[in-house]
Amino acid sequence: MADYSSLFDDPRGTREEIMQATYRALCEHGYADLSIQDIADNFEKSKSLIYHHYDSKDDLLLDFLGFMLEQFEESIPSEDEENVPKGDADTADEHLDAILDYMFTPSLEDERRDFLRAMSELRAQAAHDDGYSEKISHHDSFLIDSLAEVIDRGIEEGVFRNVDSGEVANFLFTAMSGSMERRVTNQDASVGVIRSQIDEYLQEVLYR
Amino acid sequence: MADYSSLFDDPRGTREEIMQATYRALCEHGYADLSIQDIADNFEKSKSLIYHHYDSKDDLLLDFLGFMLEQFEESIPSEDEENVPKGDADTADEHLDAILDYMFTPSLEDERRDFLRAMSELRAQAAHDDGYSEKISHHDSFLIDSLAEVIDRGIEEGVFRNVDSGEVANFLFTAMSGSMERRVTNQDASVGVIRSQIDEYLQEVLYR
Repeated sequence: MADYSSLFDDPRGTREEIMQATYRALCEHGYADLSIQDIADNFEKSKSLIYHHYDSKDDLLLDFLGFMLEQFEESIPSEDEENVPKGDADTADEHLDAILDYMFTPSLEDERRDFLRAMSELRAQAAHDDGYSEKISHHDSFLIDSLAEVIDRGIEEGVFRNVDSGEVANFLFTAMSGSMERRVTNQDASVGVIRSQIDEYLQEVLYR
Repeated sequence: MADYSSLFDDPRGTREEIMQATYRALCEHGYADLSIQDIADNFEKSKSLIYHHYDSKDDLLLDFLGFMLEQFEESIPSEDEENVPKGDADTADEHLDAILDYMFTPSLEDERRDFLRAMSELRAQAAHDDGYSEKISHHDSFLIDSLAEVIDRGIEEGVFRNVDSGEVANFLFTAMSGSMERRVTNQDASVGVIRSQIDEYLQEVLYR
């Protein structure tokens, strides 16, 4: 699972240094006010090096969206994750629980809230940019497929009922998206409620 | 229920004319690129009249957020709504169904998609603006309370089980938010799936 602070503190190569500078500038200024100069101000090397790598701000920010989506995908607990309790980690229901615990954690560290806010701003650009829309749809599909794989494994293991894993994954992902949107406006109090209702839903569809 | 096209085509007074011009400019240019000049270009009266009403672009856009949230609140089917079938409209479960049908409609007219995209862009500004964050939280609470009222009525009428209406409403609203976010990136195909999973959930918590 990614640690957002260390991830962005230890860039590997010029591209990641530019991504780190972009992230800091976005967190500080917001998307609407973001300029290449703001990014250069957070970049230790020369501004011309940014233009060497990217033709324009739009070009840079589209690459940054891809970078952020990758970070998010890597942050989801995987099957062999060390934060999944040993022994229990072998079963699909424990893995699904670990993902839900991560997504619906009651309290959020500042780093992760900054990250979700930046993601929310980037997602909103899809309203007027097909490049953003395509990347985000692709990312969403990847996350839904990952959830569906966990559910499929649970069905094979006999811990889940024989459901349409794609439909359940689709719904779980949508609830996660809504919950993340509400985090942006500090409605964290709702997250515990959402998690308990998700559990009721899963009790019905996966375990009954 | 509001009709977005006619609503914005028939402004009442200068404020609504400015709101209409802002809406058109936002749909055309996106939030990040929006200028007062873009708004003035969509406004039939003088640009100085805009500055007479608003001190700054930020001031105007915060008022516009409030206006958009009001439109959204008015668009939710109400108890005596004519689109709720007569006769059935009297029961809370039919009212809840009408709201869910509206929120999870499989296909979206262009006007409503434009509206949701504009809302998504405005919501994202909450990441860096407490004024936005407060207005959006207030609006979200209003919608959750409205849903909870319908559920409470259903409990009184004996059509729903005796549940915590606030928790169920909170969860329904979150799923709606996630679904709206996915509309922005044209993932409409998921909406039918989400609605059917919502029905499974409600079957479990409200009807069992």
